[in-house]
Amino acid sequence: MSKTIALLHPGEMGAAVGACLVGGGNRVRWVSAGRSGATRARAAGAGLEEVQTVKEALAGADIVLSVCPPHAALDVAREVAGHGFGGVYVDANAVAPGTAREVSRIVGAAGAHMVDGGIVGSPPSPKNSTRLYLAGNGGADIAALFAGSHLGTVVLDGPAGAASALKVCYAGWTKGSMALLADIRTLAQAEGVDGALLAEWKISRPAVIKDSELVTGAARKAWRWIAEMEEIAASFEAAGLPGHFHHGAAEIYRRLEAFKDTATPPEMAKVMAILKANGR
Amino acid sequence: MSKTIALLHPGEMGAAVGACLVGGGNRVRWVSAGRSGATRARAAGAGLEEVQTVKEALAGADIVLSVCPPHAALDVAREVAGHGFGGVYVDANAVAPGTAREVSRIVGAAGAHMVDGGIVGSPPSPKNSTRLYLAGNGGADIAALFAGSHLGTVVLDGPAGAASALKVCYAGWTKGSMALLADIRTLAQAEGVDGALLAEWKISRPAVIKDSELVTGAARKAWRWIAEMEEIAASFEAAGLPGHFHHGAAEIYRRLEAFKDTATPPEMAKVMAILKANGR
Repeated sequence: MSKTIALLHPGEMGAAVGACLVGGGNRVRWVSAGRSGATRARAAGAGLEEVQTVKEALAGADIVLSVCPPHAALDVAREVAGHGFGGVYVDANAVAPGTAREVSRIVGAAGAHMVDGGIVGSPPSPKNSTRLYLAGNGGADIAALFAGSHLGTVVLDGPAGAASALKVCYAGWTKGSMALLADIRTLAQAEGVDGALLAEWKISRPAVIKDSELVTGAARKAWRWIAEMEEIAASFEAAGLPGHFHHGAAEIYRRLEAFKDTATPPEMAKVMAILKANGR
Repeated sequence: MSKTIALLHPGEMGAAVGACLVGGGNRVRWVSAGRSGATRARAAGAGLEEVQTVKEALAGADIVLSVCPPHAALDVAREVAGHGFGGVYVDANAVAPGTAREVSRIVGAAGAHMVDGGIVGSPPSPKNSTRLYLAGNGGADIAALFAGSHLGTVVLDGPAGAASALKVCYAGWTKGSMALLADIRTLAQAEGVDGALLAEWKISRPAVIKDSELVTGAARKAWRWIAEMEEIAASFEAAGLPGHFHHGAAEIYRRLEAFKDTATPPEMAKVMAILKANGR
């Protein structure tokens, strides 16, 4: 049962997810207006059909799949609702459960049905283990579109919002702990004890040394994680739990924003210098 | 060269450190007024000499060693200064570098010389690997007192404050990441995805599962970690870095304060229920 899917607005992750759908015999459209040459090359490589406007992408589409930076998730939903889209709307973004439910209200008011999604892992490929979590009515139908692809699926037994919650908890650790370690290394450097800290970790916590430098490879994505961390903080606060950790992580990634699209990962010393220099 | 040392105000860690000094042939006094039977038993077991007042403890003492809950570190320094102590004052508490420097000013004004310390690890014993970091003039003399004991020493090449900074960075990770994981598990539970999160971690981050339940064994110490987390947050903020993570950790441990001195570690489900219920 081939479907026509409007994929809004794919970056690296979105293009790779789109490729999985194309591989399963589905038609996948994307909107090229205002996007970079790199994005266009990725979309073409993934076998996506280029269209000029969201309106064209939605015409006759069965499904909208939103895979965009977290700060754009609500705007994408509003734009789709504004066109009166009445099919299935999958939000696979790293947003708070409350934001996912807001997306559901927005697209639902225009007649669409929302399925909540959350992606855990790197862009799906033969070497990456990646899973799309789905929740809400119709989740299993979306999962079926990815059968046999590099993107695994898990349909959660919970309402819309559960897949977003799973993603929040997962990224809350991976990206939260990465930011915490970057903060710690930078303090150690500022206090003149970075070498002593590494020596102590070498004795008692050897795995932490490498973990504390993962931020170098992630720095180019920091710009996109600022809003993700704020969504995570909001998720905790909505549940009456401390959101402080991820406000801190948002601040760390805000200070690294300028590494956006840098081709080569910066040295750890450079990351620490920028974190310190960008302090208020 | 046997020394007379006033140990103020030892808990589990302090008693074990005191035992290392006694083992090296030093006299170690502690002040029993107002302390519990458990503390008295620990002190006696460690071979410490019981005295009734701080004044008695300080009379003829060469060294004061402060190993107390972090929130009491400044008060202990003020009390010792109030008695006009003019020897060597070792602050081995988990405090911010700025607090350590404040301790140095307080005891220095009364004529004492402060050596900055920070203890990494569990109370020293044949099975625990524990290190006392020392910084400031005279650090090597203090380290010499522990030669051959279960407490390792590292003399840092830095001013007073460096040993506290090392401890802040070390505990900033161990206790900060523990609190972050407890926050995450509790959110997952509240959103109905705790089982799904554990299943995902089992695939992609198996070590995190056990780490996320370390909080159960630590719950009885949470009361003492509240001020330690605030000291850590202050350390980051003094360096122009985000202190949010440890304000969050302080809030987690504040919610677990009632587990003080519980004999049996609570179940994870109980910890999560308390974290959720104590929300504001």
